[in-house]
Amino acid sequence: MNASAATTPIDSGRVAEHNARLETDVRADYEALSGMLARRGRDIEQLTALAQTFAVAVPSWGVGTGGTRFARFPGRGEPRNVFEKMEDCAVIHQLTRATPTVSLHFPWDRTDDPAALREIAQGYGLGFDAVNSNTFQDQPGQEQTYKHGSLTAQSGAVRAQAVAHNIECIELGRALGSKALTVWVGDGANFPGQHNLRGALERYLDSMRDIYGALPADWQLFIEHKLFEPAFYATTIADWGTSFACATELGPQAKCLVDLGHHAPNTNIEMIVARLAQFGKLGGFHFNDSKYGDDDLDSGSINPFQLFLVFNELADASQRDPAFRPAYMLDQSHNVTDPIESLMSSAIEVQRAFVQAALVDRGALRAHQEANDVLQAAQTLKQAYRTDVGPILAMARLRAGGAADPVGAYRASGYRTEVAERRPARAGASSSGIV
Amino acid sequence: MNASAATTPIDSGRVAEHNARLETDVRADYEALSGMLARRGRDIEQLTALAQTFAVAVPSWGVGTGGTRFARFPGRGEPRNVFEKMEDCAVIHQLTRATPTVSLHFPWDRTDDPAALREIAQGYGLGFDAVNSNTFQDQPGQEQTYKHGSLTAQSGAVRAQAVAHNIECIELGRALGSKALTVWVGDGANFPGQHNLRGALERYLDSMRDIYGALPADWQLFIEHKLFEPAFYATTIADWGTSFACATELGPQAKCLVDLGHHAPNTNIEMIVARLAQFGKLGGFHFNDSKYGDDDLDSGSINPFQLFLVFNELADASQRDPAFRPAYMLDQSHNVTDPIESLMSSAIEVQRAFVQAALVDRGALRAHQEANDVLQAAQTLKQAYRTDVGPILAMARLRAGGAADPVGAYRASGYRTEVAERRPARAGASSSGIV
Amino acid sequence: MNASAATTPIDSGRVAEHNARLETDVRADYEALSGMLARRGRDIEQLTALAQTFAVAVPSWGVGTGGTRFARFPGRGEPRNVFEKMEDCAVIHQLTRATPTVSLHFPWDRTDDPAALREIAQGYGLGFDAVNSNTFQDQPGQEQTYKHGSLTAQSGAVRAQAVAHNIECIELGRALGSKALTVWVGDGANFPGQHNLRGALERYLDSMRDIYGALPADWQLFIEHKLFEPAFYATTIADWGTSFACATELGPQAKCLVDLGHHAPNTNIEMIVARLAQFGKLGGFHFNDSKYGDDDLDSGSINPFQLFLVFNELADASQRDPAFRPAYMLDQSHNVTDPIESLMSSAIEVQRAFVQAALVDRGALRAHQEANDVLQAAQTLKQAYRTDVGPILAMARLRAGGAADPVGAYRASGYRTEVAERRPARAGASSSGIV
Amino acid sequence: MNASAATTPIDSGRVAEHNARLETDVRADYEALSGMLARRGRDIEQLTALAQTFAVAVPSWGVGTGGTRFARFPGRGEPRNVFEKMEDCAVIHQLTRATPTVSLHFPWDRTDDPAALREIAQGYGLGFDAVNSNTFQDQPGQEQTYKHGSLTAQSGAVRAQAVAHNIECIELGRALGSKALTVWVGDGANFPGQHNLRGALERYLDSMRDIYGALPADWQLFIEHKLFEPAFYATTIADWGTSFACATELGPQAKCLVDLGHHAPNTNIEMIVARLAQFGKLGGFHFNDSKYGDDDLDSGSINPFQLFLVFNELADASQRDPAFRPAYMLDQSHNVTDPIESLMSSAIEVQRAFVQAALVDRGALRAHQEANDVLQAAQTLKQAYRTDVGPILAMARLRAGGAADPVGAYRASGYRTEVAERRPARAGASSSGIV
Repeated sequence: MNASAATTPIDSGRVAEHNARLETDVRADYEALSGMLARRGRDIEQLTALAQTFAVAVPSWGVGTGGTRFARFPGRGEPRNVFEKMEDCAVIHQLTRATPTVSLHFPWDRTDDPAALREIAQGYGLGFDAVNSNTFQDQPGQEQTYKHGSLTAQSGAVRAQAVAHNIECIELGRALGSKALTVWVGDGANFPGQHNLRGALERYLDSMRDIYGALPADWQLFIEHKLFEPAFYATTIADWGTSFACATELGPQAKCLVDLGHHAPNTNIEMIVARLAQFGKLGGFHFNDSKYGDDDLDSGSINPFQLFLVFNELADASQRDPAFRPAYMLDQSHNVTDPIESLMSSAIEVQRAFVQAALVDRGALRAHQEANDVLQAAQTLKQAYRTDVGPILAMARLRAGGAADPVGAYRASGYRTEVAERRPARAGASSSGIV
Repeated sequence: MNASAATTPIDSGRVAEHNARLETDVRADYEALSGMLARRGRDIEQLTALAQTFAVAVPSWGVGTGGTRFARFPGRGEPRNVFEKMEDCAVIHQLTRATPTVSLHFPWDRTDDPAALREIAQGYGLGFDAVNSNTFQDQPGQEQTYKHGSLTAQSGAVRAQAVAHNIECIELGRALGSKALTVWVGDGANFPGQHNLRGALERYLDSMRDIYGALPADWQLFIEHKLFEPAFYATTIADWGTSFACATELGPQAKCLVDLGHHAPNTNIEMIVARLAQFGKLGGFHFNDSKYGDDDLDSGSINPFQLFLVFNELADASQRDPAFRPAYMLDQSHNVTDPIESLMSSAIEVQRAFVQAALVDRGALRAHQEANDVLQAAQTLKQAYRTDVGPILAMARLRAGGAADPVGAYRASGYRTEVAERRPARAGASSSGIV
Repeated sequence: MNASAATTPIDSGRVAEHNARLETDVRADYEALSGMLARRGRDIEQLTALAQTFAVAVPSWGVGTGGTRFARFPGRGEPRNVFEKMEDCAVIHQLTRATPTVSLHFPWDRTDDPAALREIAQGYGLGFDAVNSNTFQDQPGQEQTYKHGSLTAQSGAVRAQAVAHNIECIELGRALGSKALTVWVGDGANFPGQHNLRGALERYLDSMRDIYGALPADWQLFIEHKLFEPAFYATTIADWGTSFACATELGPQAKCLVDLGHHAPNTNIEMIVARLAQFGKLGGFHFNDSKYGDDDLDSGSINPFQLFLVFNELADASQRDPAFRPAYMLDQSHNVTDPIESLMSSAIEVQRAFVQAALVDRGALRAHQEANDVLQAAQTLKQAYRTDVGPILAMARLRAGGAADPVGAYRASGYRTEVAERRPARAGASSSGIV
Repeated sequence: MNASAATTPIDSGRVAEHNARLETDVRADYEALSGMLARRGRDIEQLTALAQTFAVAVPSWGVGTGGTRFARFPGRGEPRNVFEKMEDCAVIHQLTRATPTVSLHFPWDRTDDPAALREIAQGYGLGFDAVNSNTFQDQPGQEQTYKHGSLTAQSGAVRAQAVAHNIECIELGRALGSKALTVWVGDGANFPGQHNLRGALERYLDSMRDIYGALPADWQLFIEHKLFEPAFYATTIADWGTSFACATELGPQAKCLVDLGHHAPNTNIEMIVARLAQFGKLGGFHFNDSKYGDDDLDSGSINPFQLFLVFNELADASQRDPAFRPAYMLDQSHNVTDPIESLMSSAIEVQRAFVQAALVDRGALRAHQEANDVLQAAQTLKQAYRTDVGPILAMARLRAGGAADPVGAYRASGYRTEVAERRPARAGASSSGIV
């Protein structure tokens, strides 16, 4: 949907004013970069056009303030339900033009009227990416507890409840226009001996087969692995090897989802991306950044070169197979920033890596690799990475009706103050579900 | 205080019955071990006497069920206030005879009548170890928020509030008979640039100087470092080097506290223990175990040899300086076990390492080290570690009026069921403070 | 072959004397342990019989002194060729009765007369386990260099040379009675961009298909993965996921080999063991221990509980499938100890874990797991692990004709001094191949 | 010394030709960047002038091809002695104008005629940075072995030999015009029990006191810590905390040296830089990059943002104290690249980070920090980091008489081919000392 046709939470006139103030400088920087790229034989317009094709889904749970097991410090004007979350997501897309879909999490975002939700989303120009199930928490009134596991639980009743919830998620997603279910379970053990490690995975596979059986033919099932937390000794789906083996067991609609923060220290994540692409099992991403564990920090904030290297693999895979199209989603926890600002900046960071990867001279890279010219192969990547493609991203936003400087435009709009009035805080409430 | 003189939450007759059932086997195992040790030239009675001197403090926050940022699955009969926590702590000490003190956490355990609390504790035969301050959470009605730091905050008003809270903790601790304050702050940054890293530590030191100045002459101030969480890019007091430098700046009453789960992957923790002991700054421990981060698992459950090696350093330090006496505390989160059972087992695990370290033939070890006989030096430690000192620990408990098998006795007592009736669950409540 | 029938490098009379001195104490300890186990309902004789079935292969390269990239400090009397290596291996088996096979490494151990080597081995009562190829070093006179890779090299000529070497290893192994080839390659990249990550694995698979095609029908091909070193950015076969995917691609004779030191920090290795066993791809082990990387330290010297947990998985897999029989090999670098002493101690450490795992009450464990009795499930493992099975191991050695205390008997024998005279050091030489 | 006055290993006419070909593009890019910076209120000329002040020392051992414990694959034309090493270092400085000093390593670079070496260096326009001692290897004819340690050895004779070597290094360095000694020892233990951890550090301090006592008044003593390798269980000087405590014990001339690859996984290195600067003990750096351990990869090749963040701390420290001037040295192992190319590229990478850090708007950063505007504080750093300062670096080289594209000019010069003829390879030789 065209930006101008959509309902825009922020007055489009104010955005236009903002752009007008910055446009001269944006154009001057764009021209300067255009010349630099031309001297390297690259056409900036191709890159800008490519940048405009980029899209990453926003997680509905990301628009609330996150926290840790120690504390959550709420922000102002946090959304209190899925409709308010959609409004915040619409702001993000309005200003960045890079986030046309939203990834929902059930039961947090459950609605009795999916048609209405879908209509509201369409009004904002938004669609729905993969839906997420939640069997890592107990909900009020829930019959069985997930204290001792969900899809892997010893109790058949617990497993049945968890399977049924996932199937319900598929049904809800179907009504909303989603095409994929992401399954992340925290199931695991805190003590050696707590689980029969193999038995737990056997039960997981049994449960997943039931869920897989309920998938519509055009859906995908994403398996998300994670090294640790909430289980601290052994997590059933802990690494890409397990994810891959399970996806293989389940069938062609099952794929692996890579969250950048779910790996052991020192892991080469871009190589995992290459492996899954090679073996046909790369389903999608949860983008974020981290230094220690599943820190859920803003994408590209800690190790931006790693993000680029991931996109370098994706560009390589796309070149090999133009039909290759994994799902891109953000998954972050915003504990000390305005979630809308972090999500806008993060979407742009991911887009930046996407454009930088497109800048890599793949012919030269291949030639250096074939000649074992290690230094020049490395420099070929570095040259692309070092290029400040900011002007390209800004121009892509301007051309698509977004903001030259999304955070600046957002702050100028007064949106946060306005919703803070409309959405009074509820004592102790965690609007996102996750503290 | 003698066990029999204290108020015992569990009927001592039931414990006696339990012991009577097991005593024959315990004595037979003890005799068997006694012979084995005698053949190695060791007197079991010395070790049993030593085992009886062992004591580790129980954390008041540990008797409630813990959780993660994703969920908390409450247990039955969780204590709802500091008095009920003391009752649970009394069970642990009654059955293990190894946990004569409790470490309190304020404001969670704040009471208007410390004298009453102290009296109740004494009735149970319990005293108080280090008190803990909390400036990592906002409390209802609190004037300043700790969202952007406490002792390191940019805002002088925030820092003043955090300092005042710590001084209040000292006052409360003084009334209860504590002799130390443990300061752990989660202060740090989630983003490069968020903090001026040096400025934050300068403010920390300023704040700590004010707290240090309020210490009674016979108190110690324990600085607890931690690599990450809740801050995920940079934690102000992240490692022992920073802790050591700060303790040195502050003065002789400031010491470092080592939590076994607060280090970078692959860190040699026993060497940190040796370093702090050498430089006179080892204040105490928070015992627990971990595989990934600050997992707060039961002591000795993941890497029992590491726990032994820590005690091997402590035994070495004690031999060099008989006055060396760091504080021993447990600090664990019990997410899937009965907290009382975990704390009893953990106290015994720490005691086990203490006795195994005493078994090390230090003369032989030194001789092998001096001769560069690496293999035999290593085997000297291993021989002590491999010895199953369980019969010594059981006998120590029996002689001190505890239970031969504390978990067995506890389960037989029906204590949990009884308190579950007396202490109905509050919806959504986290009795411990930490989810 | 019976111990007494074999040629014994150490005079068997001296071993008998040694045993005679220790036997009374060994028997007394055995009796004491027997009683303790009987009180837990376990029959020590079953465990001793089981211990006697244990066997682990010795690596031929392990009997020389190892080193690091910084230095190698040679020991006395290092073996200078495969025949002297076999002599040292024979000592290890003579005294421990736990290492009846040797794993060779080519071209280090290449011989023109495999029949003679086989005969000499049989004279010692030794056979041959998996053979190892070496394409991580250039050999004098070699046509192509492996500087830029071997099985993954860009150059077809390099790959052909590496494949041919592996096929030659199979032929040599066949002549010696081996039944498996272990392929470890250091191939990888030191820089992002150096490799097309996917292209490198495609070439690896092509090369491996050629090697696989040359396997005799009763052979296995073991793929050994390793996170890093000698490549420091990306190693082609870096993790069990890649190893598993490749073994699956290659066919049923291809399996995965797990070296305990080849994983990312914090990895749960026993879970990888469980996964590979579940999916039918666990081929074997390289046992050692480590704290940081591929440290190649003595088995069980750093984290003995982890070694036990690995064997706990193996016991579980054996119970599920009595035909399950992965290859057990040691792979260590002895930089500061006498290699024979380290290998004897290490074989015993692995055997210890094997016996402790057999001590686990699997019925009780399953019952606790099914009841979600986490604490007792954990304690069930711990009880087995804590049992000092040393007397069982000593008795197993005595009954099999070995030494009560292998290191003691070895030292008393004067073997090292004797070979030091027979085997003068060569300046600068690394007898093992690896510095 | 001015570039044109110095002896230049590469014909300066060829460099001039090279520059002439590129100069138009370099100037055009410079103009484009100048405009971009001007629109952000920054003057490019200030930055270019600053870039010209940058200097980092080249390690003499870095101009030979490195290797691992598994293999070393020599390159062509490796320098065979310190004079040939100086020639290679002169190439690096000639083309980059950023490496005016060399850091020597004894005994590898020992010369009987330091005056001659100094004169040759001056002829190249080179001086000497810190000298390095080596007590981690045995040298032919050496009396005592370092197999069991050097400065920490049990044997007094070993320690005395190691101390004497360090003092000899000081004397040699004095003759050469160095002003600092860097002491790195690999001393440590491979097994728990091998060392009395505290005893080893006590002996280290005793040895270092003797070395410290031999320092000229205007010299510094740099203590270099490292987590592991060649010791794999416990390294005596393993972390910055130990380094700091030792430097404090020794006195004001003792400082800490930070090698970027010597830390535990996940360590925040820039915070260590901040801490050491704050406490007055930051002596200098060994720059390189790494993903796993002490990988010694090219600076900025793996995590360029981290390198920037280190320089961000250095810029902060310089602003606080204009006299702050730690030593900058490269320390890398070039296993698969031409060492001269890697060292040139790496010097430029470090210079890039230096200039990017100077681009940080420190006033804005401070304001955002004080306002707890976390997102904009982070973006302030990111904006500087994202700026491609390549044109500034190229212009700085051109103005200083270097090459627009050092690697291109070097390749065009034919230097490697020329020295390959002059310097035939010695079989098996490791020219650098370190394999």
